[in-house]
Amino acid sequence: MPKFPQFAERVNRLPGSVFEKFRSKMKEKGSYMIHLHIGDTYMHPKYDLPINPDFTQKRPYFNRYCSTFGVERFRRVVSDKLNRDNGFSVDADHILATSGATNALSASVISLLNPGEELLVLTPCWPFFPGMVEMADATGVQIPFYTELYDNPDLNIKNYLGKFLTQNTVALYLNTPNNPSGKVLDRHQLLQVADFARNHKLWIISDEAYDGLVFDGREHICVGTLPEMHRQTISIFTFSKSFMFAGLRLGYLAADPDVVKMINKALVHQLYSPSTLSQYMMVEPVKQRYNWIPWLCEEYQKLRDMFVDRLKIPVVSPEGTYFFFFPIKNCLRGRTYWEVIDQLMDEGVSVAPGGDFGQGFEDFIRICFTGEPPERLNNAVERLNRVLA
Amino acid sequence: MPKFPQFAERVNRLPGSVFEKFRSKMKEKGSYMIHLHIGDTYMHPKYDLPINPDFTQKRPYFNRYCSTFGVERFRRVVSDKLNRDNGFSVDADHILATSGATNALSASVISLLNPGEELLVLTPCWPFFPGMVEMADATGVQIPFYTELYDNPDLNIKNYLGKFLTQNTVALYLNTPNNPSGKVLDRHQLLQVADFARNHKLWIISDEAYDGLVFDGREHICVGTLPEMHRQTISIFTFSKSFMFAGLRLGYLAADPDVVKMINKALVHQLYSPSTLSQYMMVEPVKQRYNWIPWLCEEYQKLRDMFVDRLKIPVVSPEGTYFFFFPIKNCLRGRTYWEVIDQLMDEGVSVAPGGDFGQGFEDFIRICFTGEPPERLNNAVERLNRVLA
Repeated sequence: MPKFPQFAERVNRLPGSVFEKFRSKMKEKGSYMIHLHIGDTYMHPKYDLPINPDFTQKRPYFNRYCSTFGVERFRRVVSDKLNRDNGFSVDADHILATSGATNALSASVISLLNPGEELLVLTPCWPFFPGMVEMADATGVQIPFYTELYDNPDLNIKNYLGKFLTQNTVALYLNTPNNPSGKVLDRHQLLQVADFARNHKLWIISDEAYDGLVFDGREHICVGTLPEMHRQTISIFTFSKSFMFAGLRLGYLAADPDVVKMINKALVHQLYSPSTLSQYMMVEPVKQRYNWIPWLCEEYQKLRDMFVDRLKIPVVSPEGTYFFFFPIKNCLRGRTYWEVIDQLMDEGVSVAPGGDFGQGFEDFIRICFTGEPPERLNNAVERLNRVLA
Repeated sequence: MPKFPQFAERVNRLPGSVFEKFRSKMKEKGSYMIHLHIGDTYMHPKYDLPINPDFTQKRPYFNRYCSTFGVERFRRVVSDKLNRDNGFSVDADHILATSGATNALSASVISLLNPGEELLVLTPCWPFFPGMVEMADATGVQIPFYTELYDNPDLNIKNYLGKFLTQNTVALYLNTPNNPSGKVLDRHQLLQVADFARNHKLWIISDEAYDGLVFDGREHICVGTLPEMHRQTISIFTFSKSFMFAGLRLGYLAADPDVVKMINKALVHQLYSPSTLSQYMMVEPVKQRYNWIPWLCEEYQKLRDMFVDRLKIPVVSPEGTYFFFFPIKNCLRGRTYWEVIDQLMDEGVSVAPGGDFGQGFEDFIRICFTGEPPERLNNAVERLNRVLA
C-alpha cells in the first residue's frame, strides 16, 4: 500500500523525462551545446499572432517546448508567491507547472493510488474529483464534511474521519475554501485534519483553487504549511479563480522535490507540459497580484451580500469562493426536485444540481454569484425568488 | 474485451460533462439565460496581458472556460482543414480539442484499454507512447516496423503484424510520417494496415503529428480516410510541428462523434479542456496555412539535404518529419555506445538515444535537423563527423 512516502506502482514503473539524465551536462556547456535531441523548430511561427511583438522578442522561446517541470522563471515567481502570501518555505524545485488545478489533481491521484486503494473525499466536493479516482481504478470514500462544519464547528474531526478509515486508505482530498459550500476551515479544524493524516500516514491532496478568495477578513491557511505537513501534502493552485483566467488552463502544485519528480512522470504522459506561452504570460501578473486581488475579494463580497440580502430563501453565507450551496427541499411545494430545476431553466436561470457534488446532496443546488455582470445577477435573484421563494 | 466499437470500463463508468444534459435547453434560451451553474467570473483579467486589445475585444470569452469539447469556431475550422487537405468528411462534432497530440494520445489510450489488454506499438516510436500504455495498466507489444519498411518496402504487412496478435489485442498505434525514422507509409502499405485492423476489429490510434511535413512531393495519407476506416480510427493532430508552436500545447483528434464523447470523458478528468485562448488564437492561422506550410517543407527539405550531403556516415534520408534515425554500431571504433553519446555531448552536440524509441534500437541515435538555426546546424554536422566518421 503506497501510504506516505510511497507512490503508486504505475509511476514507479515509468521512466522519468527522456532527457533528464543529460540535463547537468547540457547546462554546463551553455550556448555552445547544439541541441539536436529534441524535436522542435528554430523558427518563430510564420503567421500573425495577437501577441505584442515586444513580449515575443523578450521571450524568444515562447513557442517552444519548455522543461516538463515548467519554465524556470515561472516556477521561481510562484514559489516566491507561496512563501510570501501563504507561509510556505519552497523554491523552484518544489513547483510543478500544470494545465490548471484539474490537471494537478488528476496527475496527483494517478501518482498516489494503486487500483483498489481508497481515498477519503471530503464532501460536498468539486464534481470531477470522484471521476479522477475512478480513472485511477481506485475507490473514493465520500465523507460529508464541509456542510457539517457549518452546523457543528466543534465537530471532533479526528474521531469523525476515523470512522471511514480502512486498511486500504492511502490519501485524503481536502479543499478549503470549499467548492461548492464556501466553507473556509479555521486553524483549529485544519490542525485536526493534519493530525489525522499524519497519524495514519495519509497523503493529503490539498485543492487550494480558491486561494485568495475569502471574505470578512478571514484567513486562508494551507494545510501544507502546518508543522511537519510539507512532505506529506500536495498543494494545488490555479490561475482560474483569483487571476480570472480559467481559459488559460494554467496551474501548479507545490510539494517536496521528490514528490514533484514522481508526479511529473504522470504529467508528461498526460500532456507533456502546460503551455510555455501561458507560463511566460503569468510571470508579471503574479508579481503584481496585490494590485487587484484585495479589490476583487471586496467586489465578490459585495455580490455575495447582495444575494444574501435579496434572496427570499434561507441560505448560509459563504466564507470564501464564489458559490452558494443550499438544499431546496423546503422550496418544492409539491414539485419534484427536477421539476424545480427545469422551471428555473424555463425562467432563464441555470443552476448546478447538488447530486454532482457528492452523495447526500441530491436536494441541494449550487449557484455561482460572479459568472455574470452585476445587473444580470440582480435579475437572476428575482428569477430564483420567483421559482423558489 | 473492448475491441472496436467497445470502450474501456473506466470511461464507461464515468459520467459525461456535468452540464451536458442541459445544453439544448440553454442554447434555446440564448442570452436570456443567466448562467449561475458554472464557476467563473464575468470580469476580464485586471492586469496587463501581452495580447492585442482588438483580439480580446473580438473574443470576449478568451479568458473563460470553454466547452470541454473545444471552442465551436475552432472545431469548425479544423474540420474544414481535414476535409480540404486530408480527404476526411467530418464536421465540428467529429473534433475534440486537446492539449497537444500528447494529450489526445493519452486520453485515447485510457479510453480504449482495460488493465491487462494489449496494444500493438509499431516501432521505432515516440518515447512517451509506451509509458501511456503503462499508465493505463495495459501492455504495449512492440513491433519493429518503420525501419523494416525502408529495408523491405514490399513486406507482407498483414502476415507480419499477425504474428504479434493475441486474444487480448484491442488496438494498434500507427504514426506516419514516423518519428523518429522519417518513414512515410505509401497507400499500398497503409491499405494493408487498415485491412489488418478491420479484420481483427482493432482500434487504430493514428498519430498524425507530422501531417504536412513530407518531402520530395510525397503524399501523406491518413488511415482514417481509407474505406470503412473512419469509425475505427482516432486521428490525432497538433500545432507543435507544421504550425511551429509546440509551446502552445494545442492539438485535436478527429473521430466518430460517439468516440469523441467517450474520449472527452477521459479528457475532462485529466485537465477539463485545452486553453480557450489558444484555440481562438489558432483559428486564423489554420485558415492561412497555405501561406507557409509549403515553404516550410521546402526549407526543412533543404536542411535535410544539407545533412545528407555533409554527414560522413551512411544515413537513410527521411521521407518526412524532421529527424534522422540511424545505427552507430559501425562508428564505435572500440568505444561503447554510451561513451560515444558522452563524447558527442563533450563536443557540444546533444542527440537522443535510440533505446528510448523502442526495443531493438539501442544502437541508434536520433537527431532533429530543424531545432537550431542553419548556421548552428552546420556546426553540428562538423561535430557529428568529428566523433562518428
